[in-house]
Parts: sequence; structure tokens; C-alpha cells
Amino acid sequence: MTQYRTHNCGELRLSDAGKNVTICGWFENIRKVSKNLGFVILRDFYGTTQVVIETEEMMAVVDELNKETTIQVVGNVRERSSKNTELATGEIEVVPEKINVLGKCRYNALPFEINQSKDADENMRLKYRYLDLRNPEVKSKIVLRSQIVAELRQRMTEHGFMEITTPILTASSPEGARDYLVPARNHPGKFYALPQAPQQFKQILMASGFDKYFQIAPCFRDEDARADRSPGEFYQLDMEMAFASQEDVFAVIEDVIPPVFAKYGVYNTASKAPFVRIPYLEAMDKYGSDKPDLRIDLVLQDATELLADCGFGPFEGNVVKAIVCDGFTGTRKQIDAMCAEVEMTTAQKAYWFRLDDNGDIVGGIAKFVQDKKEEVIAKLGLKPGDFVGLTAGKLLTAQKTAGVLRKLLGASCEKHMKKECYEFCWIVDFPMYEIGEESGELEFCHNPFSMPQGGMEALQTKDPLELLAYQYDLVVNGVELSSGAVRNHDPEIMVEAFKKVGLGEEDVKAKFPAMYNAFCYGAPPHAGIAPGVDRMIMLICGEDSIREIIPFPMNKNAMDVMMNAPAVVDQKQLDDVHIAIVPVEE
Amino acid sequence: MTQYRTHNCGELRLSDAGKNVTICGWFENIRKVSKNLGFVILRDFYGTTQVVIETEEMMAVVDELNKETTIQVVGNVRERSSKNTELATGEIEVVPEKINVLGKCRYNALPFEINQSKDADENMRLKYRYLDLRNPEVKSKIVLRSQIVAELRQRMTEHGFMEITTPILTASSPEGARDYLVPARNHPGKFYALPQAPQQFKQILMASGFDKYFQIAPCFRDEDARADRSPGEFYQLDMEMAFASQEDVFAVIEDVIPPVFAKYGVYNTASKAPFVRIPYLEAMDKYGSDKPDLRIDLVLQDATELLADCGFGPFEGNVVKAIVCDGFTGTRKQIDAMCAEVEMTTAQKAYWFRLDDNGDIVGGIAKFVQDKKEEVIAKLGLKPGDFVGLTAGKLLTAQKTAGVLRKLLGASCEKHMKKECYEFCWIVDFPMYEIGEESGELEFCHNPFSMPQGGMEALQTKDPLELLAYQYDLVVNGVELSSGAVRNHDPEIMVEAFKKVGLGEEDVKAKFPAMYNAFCYGAPPHAGIAPGVDRMIMLICGEDSIREIIPFPMNKNAMDVMMNAPAVVDQKQLDDVHIAIVPVEE
Repeated sequence: MTQYRTHNCGELRLSDAGKNVTICGWFENIRKVSKNLGFVILRDFYGTTQVVIETEEMMAVVDELNKETTIQVVGNVRERSSKNTELATGEIEVVPEKINVLGKCRYNALPFEINQSKDADENMRLKYRYLDLRNPEVKSKIVLRSQIVAELRQRMTEHGFMEITTPILTASSPEGARDYLVPARNHPGKFYALPQAPQQFKQILMASGFDKYFQIAPCFRDEDARADRSPGEFYQLDMEMAFASQEDVFAVIEDVIPPVFAKYGVYNTASKAPFVRIPYLEAMDKYGSDKPDLRIDLVLQDATELLADCGFGPFEGNVVKAIVCDGFTGTRKQIDAMCAEVEMTTAQKAYWFRLDDNGDIVGGIAKFVQDKKEEVIAKLGLKPGDFVGLTAGKLLTAQKTAGVLRKLLGASCEKHMKKECYEFCWIVDFPMYEIGEESGELEFCHNPFSMPQGGMEALQTKDPLELLAYQYDLVVNGVELSSGAVRNHDPEIMVEAFKKVGLGEEDVKAKFPAMYNAFCYGAPPHAGIAPGVDRMIMLICGEDSIREIIPFPMNKNAMDVMMNAPAVVDQKQLDDVHIAIVPVEE
Repeated sequence: MTQYRTHNCGELRLSDAGKNVTICGWFENIRKVSKNLGFVILRDFYGTTQVVIETEEMMAVVDELNKETTIQVVGNVRERSSKNTELATGEIEVVPEKINVLGKCRYNALPFEINQSKDADENMRLKYRYLDLRNPEVKSKIVLRSQIVAELRQRMTEHGFMEITTPILTASSPEGARDYLVPARNHPGKFYALPQAPQQFKQILMASGFDKYFQIAPCFRDEDARADRSPGEFYQLDMEMAFASQEDVFAVIEDVIPPVFAKYGVYNTASKAPFVRIPYLEAMDKYGSDKPDLRIDLVLQDATELLADCGFGPFEGNVVKAIVCDGFTGTRKQIDAMCAEVEMTTAQKAYWFRLDDNGDIVGGIAKFVQDKKEEVIAKLGLKPGDFVGLTAGKLLTAQKTAGVLRKLLGASCEKHMKKECYEFCWIVDFPMYEIGEESGELEFCHNPFSMPQGGMEALQTKDPLELLAYQYDLVVNGVELSSGAVRNHDPEIMVEAFKKVGLGEEDVKAKFPAMYNAFCYGAPPHAGIAPGVDRMIMLICGEDSIREIIPFPMNKNAMDVMMNAPAVVDQKQLDDVHIAIVPVEE
């Protein structure tokens, strides 16, 4: 193995019995039976091995050790009398001839128990991350991360994609999130910025003649932390293809990603190609969300015509959405709790009634529905026992509220949620333009640099609000992994698209000058996407906190408490880069 | 292939003749024979294909196009009458039915000819890097880079190493090069720093129980550019192993790296394991350098006893080093030029004489040597025709000057330089301490955190100037790829090592607090190295400028002229992070 050991701590088996071996690791624990009998657990990266202490002399050596000291054990492998079938090395133990201390643990007490580190205070865990990571459960997530990233790389390479690293010290971008700035020593008053994504570089690579690009790309956005977003840096599986359309991108992603989820995930099945493609408007209509969780088989029905004028005040003059759910057996209390959660999430109320086993409409807003009982049963297709959830408001409001209700209903109704799998889908055909809520004017809906469907002709002839973009989202289990698009690679179409919202060529150029210039020298049609690596790993690991899947995460306040970052620096360092600190006013 | 094409431009062969195909690419050139006959070169990432124009109508379409426009050609594959055997697609041509413009090149004239871009002004190349990269020769280096990095990753993985990405926003380090600073929005007056190397993190990973770590690690040092150093960022193949010694690290590197050099390099042979190990003092003595080019078989001889008192002034009281070179046929002029170059590089003179074919000592300082002719011939082992180069000075000066002379002699003497290969070696056993030239006091020679050979006992009992460290350099063809070391993982030995140079535990802690703290909780012995990826790629590609092997390099003045970085930023961006610009005084 190495010069320090013949075997690691996860390696010895019954067939090794009789061998003289040397193993190394952390002194995890000792179960002391008597003054000359004890069982030491030795732990390394690969596992644990039992070392049995059978003499007072050896016990004296071990008694000197603090737990978590690293030691080297030279000894003989012996079959255990009482085997542990749950442990890979559980059939053997090592009888030591000699125990050498390699690295003392100075402290008799640790900030927390290694194997219970997940229960410790988070700031303590982060401060002593090196102890936290010794917990096999914590470590396993970092190992998984490494394996997942390696496999993503390999699969992209097999598809003919080349990994190209793009600059980390680059230019500030005029829009998007807040940039991290880096003052430039040689250029007083000027700053580099860390890239929020390699978007411009990858598109310039396409214009440079590269064909299939990818990168496990570090990205930097100076935004506050959330459960699924670490402050500072995160990684994207960034990819882009030349002479390619939306379907070309879909085919690659559909082949690359699901097998990785199925292989490493807490669930071991994942969608196969092709994923369901759902136009944005249909997604909103059927699922009340542009990131539907397709593990839930419930869909929204429109009940506006049926119920808007039923006499129930909140429905009047509004769009009404219904979700019919059979087999839902929630108590009144559970239904109330569900409705309360909808209201908390959306600030909108949810309503309900039930068709009971006798075929009577009962509960919730039953009294407003009674009059139309037969029509309601017919139109909504109700069977005795069905539960009906309802929302109302303007179209988008009614849809979104119903979308939240749909997820809660699915989660509380086993019959309607196939939980143990990864259900992927594409949301496609996002609108190109919308009327801005604040401005009341025509605005870009998403990315102004996506290609409008129909290209120049559509731009010149269609109602802008009818225009769709070749823009798509990759969604799995109700989580958006990424937006992507067929890019607008044609400066003339770009200018035309900007004209619609009252901007000109100079505005196009101002946003991304290098990319725009590159496109003026002949660019290929190209398309891409950039699924979030951290988010994928969270889903695969089944972890709710992003900090569990990052080797050395910052805390919620953007501090690395282990390394003490950020920190004050010397005046000379500031002078070198021509900046001064502006004191914060009290 | 993709929805835009059935084949790429490097793919069609004679066996495809008769097929109807669609290909896409850049309109590289047209050789016009007549008004209805012309040969278009279509270029994409994969190669070029000839498209033959045979009608006036089609010629009219092509006449409209500026070169470098991207087009789609639908047509039939036909066997060429005059084949080009140097081109993969040289047996066929495509007869177009239809040519569609995909991305216009607006300009009729380019800043430089694509295929001659390497001759263009460097700032123009960098500004229009997307055009420069279209040059297949320029592109090929970036492709090679990607392949090399992918292969290094794969080989490290096969050796059981796990890639773990460490933070890019981290803490400023107290020593080493200048840090890049990033002001922290949430922590007024405090700064992150970009890592100069993941040194602390990888050692903390070892203390965290990880066993074999590697990373293609981005590193950041705010230093001025050199031919082999890009300003800003660079990459290391960073690796570290737990419970491992120097030999364990050597075995991995010896197996991982040379095959990559042999496979992708301008030379196709590379050293096999084990590499020659040369103790530092021996390297200085034999090669006059701690990064010897072992392709040269010349070695230094000590001629102090022989020649110091020969009456030649510069030798008197000095160490004299000799290099005997047979088969060197340089003219007097060439010898003078070589000696001048030694002086320019080292500020020291080089001397020489020759044993001519008659066995007479002639040339250079011959007259001072004549008297001892027989002794000189015997001691230096001279044969008629041998050339003898000489240097003098204090030991290190005489050695280093001779080291430079040795390289020049090797380069000008085919017999003594096996140029077409990669000769690796390890320089080992660096001294732990030295007497500082300025201070006159005991100082650390290299890295204070390397393990002294003999550990605590040696520290306590040996003369510090006799102490060696487990510190090593990886050298290939006279270029240092990396330093590495067995790390000092024991806080007690660290404190003892610092005591020798008059420092205490607080000083140890102040340098790398997180690492020191981690080691106090039980660390494994560990060792590692971090060969420079950019430097390896330069050697493999045979390129002298680092900018040739970086996709988007900064210029020598640390500017990205394509992206316009660094640049001025909005006042609001500065306010957000609590800094102000300090105007530079005129």
C-alpha cells in the first residue's frame, strides 16, 4: 500500500488470517473489558478494523493515547470468535505486536463526538471541519461529490465534449447578480471580477470554432446564503454545442445525467430519454408551476366556467382551478393545515370539498357547490370519496396557488406520488416577451440573448407577446436544475429583438461587448445549458443543506470560520492595489 | 450528428461518395477558376472539406459571402478527380444543392489572416482571440491542453486518488507571493483572498481522514508575467497522500506523468520509473544546478587542486570546476559567444582550453595549464580533441556558472545531448537550514513545514546545518515542475524546528493557524507535490510562450484585452463592498 502500511483499515478479510500486517489509522475508541483485555477500533479512510489488546503491557501503551491519535499497528490477523457481519472487516481482528504513535491528539476531550458530529452546533462543525469530516457519514457525501463530478466529466467526454477552463479573473458584467471584485495592482482604479458563469466565454468559444465544450465551472455570485445556495462559489456543469439545436442539447443531457442520479442517488431509478417536454403555458395550466414535480400524478383542472359564479365570494370574477384527488384520506385537521401552508407560501387561500362515500358533497365550501352537484360531478369527473382542492384569482395566481396545493396533496397521498425516483422533464417554449408588471411596457421575459422561435421573420411579423423563445428549463422532482437556450448568434436578429423593447445596437453591445464583436465575425448557431452541480449533488445525496455536500463550506454569513476568512489585511496589501476601506457609518 | 448536419468537415471519405449530406462550417476560402467553377474550403472543428462550385447560380450565392461566414451546405459527395493525400477528406468533394448562410461575417477584411495568426501582433491576437483560435495550429494547443488534463485526471483516479475542490474565496496567507484580495460585502473592512495554492486545505484534508487527494487546482498569485508564467491564474496538479513517505509520492508521479509526456509530447519518449534520484548536494556538484537537464551527459569535475594555483589569476584561492567535452567542434567565435552567454546569465566568466589532435594544450587559458600538462591530462582524463570548459569562484558560484556552461555545451554538441526525449529526475535531500546571506543567522532553507530527516531526534542532536529535509523537486529536461515534501505533521517537531531559528509556538501558529490546529487533533504522516500544469503543457507542446497553451490568456500587463479586464466599475459596486479608490500620485 504505502511505506507506512501493508493494508488499509477496510481491507482485511478472513482469508488474511495468519498474515503479519501493518495498518494505520485514527484511534477511534476502546471497549475495555478488563485490565488486560480490550477492543480498539482503528479507523482510516477505507473503514475500521478491530485491534484486540490482550496484555497489560499493550494496554499500558493504549492507555497513554488520547482518542483520535493516529497510530501504526504491527500485528497478526486472526479470525474473530464473535463476528460482526455488518462490518467488511468484521470476521477478523488484529493482534498487535507493536503500536507506534504517528500523530498525537493533544486533547482528551473533543469539541464533539466524531460519530455524532451531525448533531453538533453548525458553527462548531465548520470551525472544526477536519473533525466533522472524520465522521464517515459526513465524509461519505464529499466522496460521493467527487465520484459524481468524475462521472459527469467522463460521460461528457464520451459524448465528444472537451473540457476547457475559462478565466476566473475576468470582467465585471453589467447585469445579473452582484460581482465579486478584485482590485488590479497594475491598473490603479480598475478591477477584475470573478465570473458569475462562463456564459460569454463559452459562447466566444463557439465563435472560435470549438464544437462541443463543457466545464465543471466555478461560478461566483455575491448573494446571500439560502438552504440550497452557498454564499460565494458554486459549480455548474456548463456545456455548449455548435451547429446544434434544442433537441441536440436535450439528447446529450438525457443521456449524461439520469444514469448518474440512478447510480449514486438515494433513489435508484431516473427518467430515461426522451424526457417529457412540457411547453411553459401547459406546465402552468396543468401543474401550476414551471418546475412541476412529475412524481405526483395530479393535474389541475379549470373550474372557472363551472364555479366562478357559484356564489362563493372569492371565486367571483376570478379564474378557478381544481385538483381532484382520489384516495386522499386526510382528516379535517390535516386539510386545514394543508390550506394554511398554501396560504403561508402563496398569501392566497385554498378551498376544498369532498364527494363522500354516499355521493354527497360535504366539507369546506360544499354549500356553495351543492346546487350544481351533478354538473360538478360530471365536469370534474368525480367519484365517491374524491377530494377536490380549489384555488382562485387572476390566471397566474390561481395557477400558482394550485401548484402549491398540488405538491402538498401529492406529498400527503401515497397513491399519487411515486416518491422513490427522479422524474426529469423539460419545460420548453418560454415566451420571449411579456408586459412588465411595474413598467406596463414590453420587456424581455427571460434572457434577451436567446433565439426567438421563427427568427427574424417572426420578430418582424408576429405579435411580440405571441413570440416564443428557444429557451428551456431542466427540472427534476420539482427542482429547477438549470435554464438553457438556443442562443441568438446573429447580430442582426439581436438588434431586431432589442428594438422591440426600445433599445438599439449600442445597448446590445454594451451588455456583452466581446461576445457581440465575436458574433460579427461569423458565428455558428449554438445552444447549451449549465445544470447546477451542487444542486444535483444535494438531490442525489438526499441532503437539504448545501453545506453537507461542500468540502469546506462557508457559513450562512459568508465566513469560513476554520480559515478565518474574510479577515483584515495589512495596510501594505491595500496600498499595493490602490484601495482604502470606507468606514461604515453607525 | 446534430440537427444542423449529417457529417462534420473532417469526416467524409471515399466510401461516402454518392451520399447526400449536410455539412456546416466556416467559409475559409475559395479558389475561383472561372465564373462557374470554384473550390470552396469549408472548415469546422474537425477539419476541412472541399465544396466544388459548378454553376453560375451557386457562384452567385458564394460571391455574396464574406470569408469566415458560417454556412450550411446540402449536397452530394463525389470522388475527386485530383486527390489530396495530405487531407483526411482529400479523396472527396461535396457538390452543393443548396448553401444556407447561418452566421454572416460582417467584415470583408479580417484583422489578420486566420491561418497566419501566429505571425500577427500579440495584442491583436489576444483582442481577437476568437479569430486566432480558428487557426487550426493555435486551436490544436488548446485541444491538447484539454486532453492532457483529462488524462492526468484519469490516471490519478486510477491510482485511487479522489479529486476534491477546495475553496477559491479564502483567507490571505502571511507569506509567499502577493495575494489577490476580494473585499467582503457582509464584513466591512475585511477581505477574502484567492488561494496561492490549496496547500493548507490539502493538508487539512489529510487531517480530516482523506487518504489520497488530488485536484487540478486553480492558483492565484499577483506577480508580474514571465515567458513561463501568466499573470493571475495558473493550474497545479495538486496531490497529497496520507500515511505516505517520499517514495510513495515518487511511485505515483513516476507512473502518472511520463506516459502523458510520451503520448502527447513533441518528443515521444520519457523516463520510466524509477527516475534517477539525485541528492541536492550531488546535483550541484555534478551538474552545477538543482534542475539538471539529464539529456546532456556532461558532468562537472573538480579541478581546484589541479588548477587553483596554476598562476591564472581568477582561479587563485577559488574553487575551480571543469567540464570535459569530447567531440565538441565549435569555432573560436562560437566558443567566445558561449562564454559571453555564460557571463550574461551568471555575471561570471567561463574559461577554456583544448587538447588538440596532436595532444597539445591550446587555446583559451592554455598557457597557464601547459606546465601541468601531464597531470591535467591524467586527472581530467583527457583525450586528443577534448574541449575543457572551466569556471571559478566560491563553491556555489563555481558550480552554478559551470551548470550554465554545461547546458550550453550540451546544446551545441549533438553527441552529448539526446534532445528528443523527456528526462525526469528527482532532486532529494535538500538541507533543512542554511546561514542566511543577509542575516548571517540560521534560517530555513526552503519550506519550514517540511519534515526534517530523522525527526525530533535529529533536530535535538544534530548540527542544524547538517540536517536534511524530506523535500524534493521534480525536474524534467532542466525545468523544475514542482517542489514537494513529506510534511511535518507533528506540532511538537514543528515547534522544535522553529526553535532553531529563534521562533516559538506562537510563530508556528501565526503562519498557518487552521492547519496547526488541525494537527493538534491527530494527523497522519503525509506527503505530496503539485506539478505545474501549464508548465507541463508547455513542455509537452514544445511552446516557449505560456500564452499559447491558455484558452484566453491575459497579456503581459495582466489585461484581458478581449473582455476589457480589469475595468472601472460603478461607484455603487465599490460602496457595496466598503472600499474607495486611492488616487495614484503623479
